[in-house]
Amino acid sequence: MKSLIGQYGEFNFIKRFKPNFDGLLTNGEVGIGDDCAVIPDGEESILVTTDMLLEDIHFIKDAISPEELGYKSLAVNLSDIAAMGGTPIGSFLSMAIPSNIEVSYLDSFMDGYLSLSTKYKVPLLGGDTTKSSDKITINVCVLGRIRNNQIKYRKDAVAGDAICVTGPLGDSAAGLEAVLNHTETTDVINSLKKKHHKPEPRIHEGSFLSSKPEVHAMMDISDGLASDLKHILELSNVSAEVNIDSIPVSDEFKMACEQYAWDYNKLLVGVGEDYVLLFTVDDKSFDKLNQNFHKKFGKNIFKIGNIIEGSQEIKWFNNHKLIELKTKGFDHFNNR
Amino acid sequence: MKSLIGQYGEFNFIKRFKPNFDGLLTNGEVGIGDDCAVIPDGEESILVTTDMLLEDIHFIKDAISPEELGYKSLAVNLSDIAAMGGTPIGSFLSMAIPSNIEVSYLDSFMDGYLSLSTKYKVPLLGGDTTKSSDKITINVCVLGRIRNNQIKYRKDAVAGDAICVTGPLGDSAAGLEAVLNHTETTDVINSLKKKHHKPEPRIHEGSFLSSKPEVHAMMDISDGLASDLKHILELSNVSAEVNIDSIPVSDEFKMACEQYAWDYNKLLVGVGEDYVLLFTVDDKSFDKLNQNFHKKFGKNIFKIGNIIEGSQEIKWFNNHKLIELKTKGFDHFNNR
Repeated sequence: MKSLIGQYGEFNFIKRFKPNFDGLLTNGEVGIGDDCAVIPDGEESILVTTDMLLEDIHFIKDAISPEELGYKSLAVNLSDIAAMGGTPIGSFLSMAIPSNIEVSYLDSFMDGYLSLSTKYKVPLLGGDTTKSSDKITINVCVLGRIRNNQIKYRKDAVAGDAICVTGPLGDSAAGLEAVLNHTETTDVINSLKKKHHKPEPRIHEGSFLSSKPEVHAMMDISDGLASDLKHILELSNVSAEVNIDSIPVSDEFKMACEQYAWDYNKLLVGVGEDYVLLFTVDDKSFDKLNQNFHKKFGKNIFKIGNIIEGSQEIKWFNNHKLIELKTKGFDHFNNR
Repeated sequence: MKSLIGQYGEFNFIKRFKPNFDGLLTNGEVGIGDDCAVIPDGEESILVTTDMLLEDIHFIKDAISPEELGYKSLAVNLSDIAAMGGTPIGSFLSMAIPSNIEVSYLDSFMDGYLSLSTKYKVPLLGGDTTKSSDKITINVCVLGRIRNNQIKYRKDAVAGDAICVTGPLGDSAAGLEAVLNHTETTDVINSLKKKHHKPEPRIHEGSFLSSKPEVHAMMDISDGLASDLKHILELSNVSAEVNIDSIPVSDEFKMACEQYAWDYNKLLVGVGEDYVLLFTVDDKSFDKLNQNFHKKFGKNIFKIGNIIEGSQEIKWFNNHKLIELKTKGFDHFNNR
């Protein structure tokens, strides 16, 4: 066994301790392994999700405005609630802050956090504030609610399902690429950076999809399609065929990849943080679902492949040709 | 206004942003300001608390074993649930871990976390694991439940109440003093260090006290009696008289203070982390409550003073003489 966590990896570590805790799950809770934990509460369930953001690991302080950082800290958690179809009911914000941070910086952070809290009517119910020796650390926890018969898990994809996304992929990854490469400031680049720094949690879309029995598995795209879809395949014990050329992309994404010779496929499926919803739906219900989705939201859902029988693999196609994509599962210890 | 958070302070910062979020509290939630947030859920309420622990701020990696650290990370949160009288229903653990941490270190951490989870039957339902650049950061969030008519807040102390604690104060502070001063290893010192590193969350005591209508305000002692009692006084708009010589202490505490010439009063009321329960009870009900408490737990509760009318001040007495104690409210930015 590799003895350092940096070699051993995040997912192996979780697999290592999880079974020791399974015996404590005696009230029908669903714990580690989906976008949220699910705690039964009568005809409804409480959803809980939590995410930690570290300076220089998840964000670069000089590259993201405090207002964007406050917004994004909440957004990534709301997205997990959306991913199971829930409605958020409250958030908890813990922050470790170096003593030399300006109060005005924190004011802007809270403004960004407040703007998204207000948009989705999510009260800030608590948290923790403490000193940090040198860097900012943020932990947000969000609670949500959902009717038991509407919860969408990752484990419910079945062969024959269409694989769908609710919007374009790659924008956030391209925005991050622009940040890391200090790419020149243009309208295109600014638009992509904004997608990276202010992702929209798809609360209303998730709520709509959760009300449809023909929608089977669902999650949000946080680590990249290649990695995230793999979670659905593993938990549902199925495989997938994905058509790269069917994945929706923005004009900005195409332009930037072309202009700066960025790795199109890697940014499209290997990075993530788009926070669009990834779901599977009974194939014959796709057209009707798309019509209803369009009626409600004024935009389409996109079919990008199919669930097939198999041993949890993704086959990637481009123009009907099988291609090889070198992507591995995202692991915080090994990929960055 | 002081422009850096290090000068401005934690509590001022919270007071600064809190009103902006108050308008989002539309479902009877009780948010920032007590040990837990309270979310109404029929005849019961959901309690939520969260605490962040940082290496070199809240713990010194070489001074606390990983097993103790895992235990304590959960204990301080369970104590907040106990402080309102609730029963814990699940925990969430987020960790940022440097790549060079041994997997065996993390195994021990999880063993400590598991032992306390098992003791109080609290399932680990989720969390987040990520890489950190150099130090360990831990954030734990715990959910609990309680019947609405049994919730004990900080705001309900009334003049005439006896002020009580469920056990001795100062041990944890003395243990910390021993850690910081690299005090020689003796049985006394080891016992005090253990109180600091493995505090007992008073779940069962909290649950018992919450069932008694004569118990009015309650909280746990995390920051020290001087600071914590101040929260009760401010929220209840009353004052207090506290008899220093009535505060229960252990023999180990007395011996160590004497032997090493530590500041007795400061360690007793100025530091904290004993995680005993601090509560107020209708004075004429004290004797009966103490009898029932003793019948159930085989030990006493201790009356250390009285709530009086006044403007949120503590008067300290020693042998019936008014004394002056130089303690200020604990603030993570200013006190350590």
